[in-house]
Formats: sequence, structure tokens, C-alpha cells
Amino acid sequence: MVYIYDTTLRDGAQAKGVSFSLEDKLRITSALDDLGIHYIEGGWPGSNPKDLAYFKEVKKLNLKTSKIVAFSSTKRAGIKIENDANIKTLIEAETPAITIFGKSWDLHVKEALKISLEENLELIYETITYLKKYTDEVFFDAEHFFDGFKENPEYSIKALKAAEEAGANCIVLADTNGGTLWYEVEEIIDKVKEVISAPLGIHAHNDSDMAVVNSLIAVRKGAVQIQGTINGLGERTGNANLCSIIPNLVLKMKVESISKENLKKLYSVSRLVSELANRPHPENLPYVGENAFAHKAGVHVSAVEKNPRTYEHINPELVGNKRIITVSELSGRSNIINKAKELGIELDKASPKVKAVLEKIKELEAQGYQFEGAEASFELLLKEALGLTRKYFELKGFRVLTEKRSENEEAYAEATIKVEIPEEIAKERNLPERVEHTAADGRGPVEALDKALRKALEKFYPSLKEVKLTDYKVRILNETAGTEASPRVLIESTDGKNKWGTVGVSPNIIEASWLALIDAIKYKLMKDEEEKK
Amino acid sequence: MVYIYDTTLRDGAQAKGVSFSLEDKLRITSALDDLGIHYIEGGWPGSNPKDLAYFKEVKKLNLKTSKIVAFSSTKRAGIKIENDANIKTLIEAETPAITIFGKSWDLHVKEALKISLEENLELIYETITYLKKYTDEVFFDAEHFFDGFKENPEYSIKALKAAEEAGANCIVLADTNGGTLWYEVEEIIDKVKEVISAPLGIHAHNDSDMAVVNSLIAVRKGAVQIQGTINGLGERTGNANLCSIIPNLVLKMKVESISKENLKKLYSVSRLVSELANRPHPENLPYVGENAFAHKAGVHVSAVEKNPRTYEHINPELVGNKRIITVSELSGRSNIINKAKELGIELDKASPKVKAVLEKIKELEAQGYQFEGAEASFELLLKEALGLTRKYFELKGFRVLTEKRSENEEAYAEATIKVEIPEEIAKERNLPERVEHTAADGRGPVEALDKALRKALEKFYPSLKEVKLTDYKVRILNETAGTEASPRVLIESTDGKNKWGTVGVSPNIIEASWLALIDAIKYKLMKDEEEKK
Repeated sequence: MVYIYDTTLRDGAQAKGVSFSLEDKLRITSALDDLGIHYIEGGWPGSNPKDLAYFKEVKKLNLKTSKIVAFSSTKRAGIKIENDANIKTLIEAETPAITIFGKSWDLHVKEALKISLEENLELIYETITYLKKYTDEVFFDAEHFFDGFKENPEYSIKALKAAEEAGANCIVLADTNGGTLWYEVEEIIDKVKEVISAPLGIHAHNDSDMAVVNSLIAVRKGAVQIQGTINGLGERTGNANLCSIIPNLVLKMKVESISKENLKKLYSVSRLVSELANRPHPENLPYVGENAFAHKAGVHVSAVEKNPRTYEHINPELVGNKRIITVSELSGRSNIINKAKELGIELDKASPKVKAVLEKIKELEAQGYQFEGAEASFELLLKEALGLTRKYFELKGFRVLTEKRSENEEAYAEATIKVEIPEEIAKERNLPERVEHTAADGRGPVEALDKALRKALEKFYPSLKEVKLTDYKVRILNETAGTEASPRVLIESTDGKNKWGTVGVSPNIIEASWLALIDAIKYKLMKDEEEKK
Repeated sequence: MVYIYDTTLRDGAQAKGVSFSLEDKLRITSALDDLGIHYIEGGWPGSNPKDLAYFKEVKKLNLKTSKIVAFSSTKRAGIKIENDANIKTLIEAETPAITIFGKSWDLHVKEALKISLEENLELIYETITYLKKYTDEVFFDAEHFFDGFKENPEYSIKALKAAEEAGANCIVLADTNGGTLWYEVEEIIDKVKEVISAPLGIHAHNDSDMAVVNSLIAVRKGAVQIQGTINGLGERTGNANLCSIIPNLVLKMKVESISKENLKKLYSVSRLVSELANRPHPENLPYVGENAFAHKAGVHVSAVEKNPRTYEHINPELVGNKRIITVSELSGRSNIINKAKELGIELDKASPKVKAVLEKIKELEAQGYQFEGAEASFELLLKEALGLTRKYFELKGFRVLTEKRSENEEAYAEATIKVEIPEEIAKERNLPERVEHTAADGRGPVEALDKALRKALEKFYPSLKEVKLTDYKVRILNETAGTEASPRVLIESTDGKNKWGTVGVSPNIIEASWLALIDAIKYKLMKDEEEKK
């Protein structure tokens, strides 16, 4: 059994420009748990208050599989461990497992920590022994291990031994600078196994484009824990990519780890992390890239369809991805039909109405619409096209003015809006008026418009008062088109009971936000009615 | 000696969305020759006239090192080779080397080619024998070799033998579907070496994230030719990435191949190919990504500078790349002082003016300012605070109206703006007026404001006409604050000679864009003046 240890939220989050909110981290945690990941390293509680908050909130998630891990350095030299604030917050996090990283390269002990080699070993031993009393499992990450072994093998082994003697449940060998080649990993792990009997793990970095193979080699040598991130997200060239590692491990090496059933969720977890990291999803990622199974048309196509084995190394559905034949639309269509089925809607491929819906969806996708993280917009689109929901309001116009009077004055915004309720609904609900024309202001144009819209609609639909926007993301789709680029806005809303995501795309960012906002509202109103029936 | 065989122009060009013009191909060829690449596969002359044209034009290039290779399938079954049009164009290309690919997997012979297994071997033998008369070297690419060997080892070996007997100068084992794991490559090449004595080569694909290690393993097993592409450009998940392979080979495995001197050109060749393939250069590529040597965080920085070995696996200059110390929120005072030094500004930590600047920067960072990718804003901030630049214009107010008249009408925007030029500058440049009040419109509010701003300032500063916005990114900083979240806008601008990045943060997205836009303009005006001195 090989355990997958995900550090997307800690090491992955060090990637340039990545900043996960608390909400993002919890969403990713749920998705990883659903995928069957064994350990989720949530952060370094002692490093900042946002990390500490995560450990409190994550307890409310009721995870099925994943164990949450808190990460930290060894205790500080020269103070009593009971007085070490960092260690205290670690214990406060109350996680079922803790990972401690420590120096195993003498150069680092001398130049970075500036303490004696002996003292470093004591720090490792003392920290782990102490923490074993407060949690079920303590893992030791031997930082810069391979470089340290190459320069001073005896010392690096001593570091491991200190952890082993302290009772570390797993000793993880880290290739922190990412410079170790595969055959060096093979040779070094062989040497380690001669003297260390504790379970081993591997934490590779991709600076030499070796992180995936180094991780799998460690497994072949008996390692039981692989540390990595989704999409290889991480500093510099990234961490070991779990989205390459897990399929290779499970489907090809036939090692027991994540179940084949759970593996089918890999693609959507991969997309979710790119979305929340606010990065374009790399098309050419092995297994989980959009192009991973994209076959160019012509010669291949019939061969692939008759006998996929001729051109595909695995069946894409095993990881939740799909085959794309770049000329024909066949695969796109079956995906949409499957998604509709999940929502309880049977789509008859032949029906002209359905053909129109499918065309519309492909058209929107070509404009940049993406329904991952915005399933509510997808559901609305389907149901509106198939006549399974109704119109709740009509926009009769909005205007948003943003003004900045001088350099020293802050900009502010005012929005006016006019909406009209359909006659039918006004009758049903005994509403005396059908039109509302109102205004609101705010620091920014989207805030002003959102306030005005709600003000107008809450008059007719009081349940909208429960709806709050919990997440607002903007992605510019074609950034190199400068200010003519198209923003895609992704919104997450909640009414206290459920959460739902909606999307809007437009070259006008206020309009893009508008589209995502009204979908969020329409979805709530639609669900309220569906529930009544 | 291991020969590097580049197929960026042929296999790499199959990547989605890539279309190299003839000019592009010649530029890449020169760059590869300069890098010292041994073979450049320029295309498949029989496949289209553009490829054929390449082989004619490339002769005029006077290459120092690279041998041009023409690529093709084996002759067609059932016709005389002298009458095969495809083979004729091959010969017409008059290259010093030719690569023939042929089937070595029985499944493909039967299902794709639909000929007998015996006939396939004859095609291979006949084609290679024939072409040996017309060129110095003929290479045989055994398509799907590893899959073929796994299913029917005898047949796949027969295909290799046919090529060997025909006198192929190198037999290249191709992992066409990319599904082969590293240990399988090891085992299979061992078996091949038992029966084949011709020189071997490797052509790997990255579907299992193994292409780099598979290529290097082949070398360790005695292969003398590695086929790959710059940046791993290619179909699906890409070809074997020469930008990872060559540095690993030369710097770490110490194998004789590209010279160390030439290796320094790797980064610029890598950037050129991304440029001409019209793709963003992936920041996290090993060795040649912009972030490959980017160090975050205050803790590291002093360690890295004193002793780069502590955190870097190689000296970035060996591949033409550079170390980046990112000015990010995790870093401290020393980072800022270092960056200032790079700009030629000595900051005296003790000076109160400097202390104020440092505080200001930290304050801005806490608000969400990030200077990675926005170094121009950082430089402006420093110079403005230290009185090293002047004010070029003052905002006297802007107003941006966004209107959407109904659901069926698109939103549009109109911006008005008033700016005033300082008296001093008006005098210097003999400007008759100091104030401009104008308007512009656009699909979206940011576009409208940008146009109005430029319209106003170009009146006083004509050089601004050269400035174009090439990238516009938005990040919502505290997404869970909903519509009260703070957008951070990152802009990249160019004047045709230089590129620079600027940033703006504000809860009002139009104001955030405004701040990034005026920094872009101020930076240009400041640099223009600095250059004059």
C-alpha cells in the first residue's frame, strides 16, 4: 500500500502568484478527500494566522478518507520546547498527523541554521519525541537529503537515525533543490535502506524534470509515502506531479494506492486546483491536460475509434478525462449528455432542441465559458433551453458610473437598475407592482451593481436576502488582447444551506460580473421552486 | 558522443495551434545551428509544398554544425520505389541525412497499413537500401516500438533487423504513444542490444511524464542519438524536451554532446521557439523557465547570495538563464534593498527617507500589491519617494459610464477624463496648453478609460503613441469578500524596444486598472528622460 501525501495547500501554494483563500483551501480539501488522498498537508500553523484558521475550520468538514497534516520546522535552538510558540501552534492545530522538516545537509546546518551539527540532531530528536505525545503520526522530512548524502553521507544518515530513534512513523527523503537524477536516487535509497528500517517516503522537486520518476523509483525501492501536489503546482519548476504519479502507479505499476474508482475524479480535481490557483490549466499535462488525449484528425481517427489501443496508452475515462478528436465534435457531445444525465435530465441526441442546446454550449465554450466550478450556470442553461424552468425577471437596463474626482480622492461608483417581473409571477404571488427602478452605490462598480440588483429583486423575492456571495474570481481569457481582453467571472454563492457556482464571460467586465450574478440569483429562485414541488 | 536530433520543426510543429511560417523555420534552424544541435529534422517534403520549400531555402543558410534531415514514411506498398512520388521529393530535398519511419508493431501493420507482416519488412528494407544511394546517412524510426515489443517481440525485432541489414546508420526506438515506463525502457533496450548491433537512438513522448528520463536511460544503455524538441513542443503531452535533456546530459551526466559554451544559448533558443510558436513561455520549465531559478522568501535570500549551492542545483548562467529574487510578501527588507541595488539605487537602511519607503512598500504589499511581474511600478515607487523622478501629469478627474440597455443589447462604456501638465514641463516643451479634457468609448470600461487617457496624454507626449498594452491580468485578492473584494490588476506594456510590468490595487476594479495604466505611462516617460541624460 502506497500512501499519497498531498502538499498542494502548503508547498504548492508557494508557487509564484498563487494565493489560496481559506475557502479555496477547504474546497480543495474536500475534493482531495473525495479523490481518496490519504494525507493532506494543510499548512504551517506557526507561520501565519490564515494557516491556523484552516486547521480550525477543516475539522467541520467530516472527511471520509484524508488525514489532515500540520507542517513545521524543528523546534528553535536555545529555547525549551514547551516555550516554542511555533510548536505550540502545531499542537493547537490538533491534527491526526504532523510533519516536521529538519536539516540533513551539514552545509545547511552550518550556513543557514548556524548551529552545531550535534545540536541539529538533538533538535530533530527532541521535536519528534515531544510531538509523538500529541498526535498519532509524526513524519520527518529530511530537507536537502540527496545533496546532503552526496556531500556528507554519514551526517545525513545520522539525521535520519535521530528521527528514527525518536519514533518517526515515516522518514521522507526530500530532493529540495530538485537536482538529483534518477540513478542517483536509486543508489542513494539502496544505501539508506541498509541502515534505516523505518518506513520511507519521497518528496521530489522538478528542477531536473525528474520529480515523477524519482518518486516512482522510491516506491519501487519500497517507499510507502509519496509527497507531491496536484498539477505539480509549486515553487520554481514545481513539486512532484501527483496527476502523473497516481495514474502511473495505479494503472501501470499496479501498486495498491488510490482506488480505480476514485481515480476517475482526477481530471476534475486537477481542473479545480487550476481554477482556484487562478492559472490557466496547462493543456499538455499528462493524463489531465485537455490535450492529453487529443488526436489530430485524418489518418488516426477511425483507427483510434475502432481500436483505441493503437494510439492511446490508456483509456482517458480511467482518469476522468476524455478523448478529443480535434475535427469532429462527437466526444464533446457525449460529455455534455453525460453531465445532463447526472442532473437527472435525459437528452435525446437526435432531438433538434437538444442539438441546438449542444451547439449553444460549444459556442459558449469557444467564447471562454467554462462550466467547471460553475455547474449552476450549466444547469440553468440546459433547463432554460429545454423549457424546464421559467423567467423570473427581465432587465430593463442598468447604468453604472465610476468616478474619480482627483488623484487624492478614492474612486466610487453608483449603479441604477430597472427590472420587471413577468405578469404571471406577479399574479401568482399577488405582487402589487411589477417594476422596480432603484439605485445603490459602493466603492467599486461591481459592488454597486450587485447591491442595486439585490435591492430591486428582494422586493419581489424576499428569499434572496439569504443569498450571499462567498467568492468572486476574475480570469482574463486572452490576456494578450490587452484591454480588449475577455474577462471570465466566477462566482460562488450560498444561502446558508447550499453552495453553487456561476460564470459570466464578456469583454466588458461589469457585464461579465452581471451575467454571473444573475445566474446565481436565477439558480436560487429555480431551486426554491423545484423544492416546493 | 551523443548526437542531439531536433524535430521541433516537424514533430513539434504538430502541437495544437502551432503553425511555423517558412521564415520562422529558417530562424529556428539558425538558432539551433548556433546552439550546436547535430541534426535538424526540417519536415516531411512529400507531405506539403511548404515543407519542400524549406529544404530549398535552408541550403542558403551556411550552417556551421547542424545537418538537415528530411523525414518520410517507408515507400508505399504495391508500387515501384522509383515511381513513389513521396520518395522522389525526399531525394529532391537533397539533405545530408534522411529519416524513414516504419511500423514495428504488428497490430499497426495489420490495422493501419493493412498489409502483410512480411511485406512491411520488405518496405523497410527496400526504402532504406534505395535511399542510402542518395544521401550520407539514413536513420530508421521504429514507430510504436516499445508497445510493439511488448506485444510481439519477435516481429518488432524483425523490423529493426530489416533496417539494420539495409544499412541504417542509426535505429531509433520510438515510444510513439508515450505509455512506456522507465524500467520497461531499460529492460527492452537490454533485449534489443542482444540482437542488434547498429547504433541506437531514442524518440520518446511525454504521455506518462517519462520522456526525459526514458531518453537519458537510452543513453546510459549506449544510445547515440536523442530525438526531441525545444520546450518539449509537440502533440498531446509533447515530445521529449531537449531543454531538460541537454543540460542533464552535459552538466550532470558529463556526457559529450553539446559544448558547455554553446549550452549558454539554450535559454534564448527556448524563448525564441515559444515566441515563434506564439505561445506563452511556461514559467516553470526546468532550466529554461523564467521561474526555474526564482527564489521567494526572505529566509532563503541571504543564504542563496552567500552560497548559491545551498538552494540552486546548478548555476543558472550555464544555460543562459538567471537567478531571480522575487520581491514578495514573504520577503523582507533585504529583498527590497537588493532589488534597489539592481536598479542602481543604493539604499542606506538607516536613512529615515529610506525607512519610510520600506514601510510604504510593506504597507502596499499588505494591501495586496505584488511587485513580481510589476518591477516598473516598484522602480517608480522608489524613485518617486527618493525624488529621483518628476510628475508628468495630474489627474483632474475621470468618469466612466457603463450601460446595458436591455438583456438583448450588449453593454458598452464611455469615459471622460481631464488631465493637467505641470507648468514646468509645459514651459520646457513649449506646450501652448496645459489641460486636456476628452472622451472615448469602448466595449468595456477599462478599454474606454485607457483610450481616453492615451488620447489626452498623447497630445503632450507623442512618444506614448509607441506604447502598447500586451497583457492584462486581474486577480481578486480576497475573493471571499465577494463583490467587496480587492482586484489587483497587472499590466504588461511595450514600446517595441522594451517591455515592462505595472500593477494597481483597489477595491474598485476600474481604479485598480487606472493605477496600473498610469504607472505604465509614467514609467515610459521617466525612461525617456533618463535616456536623454
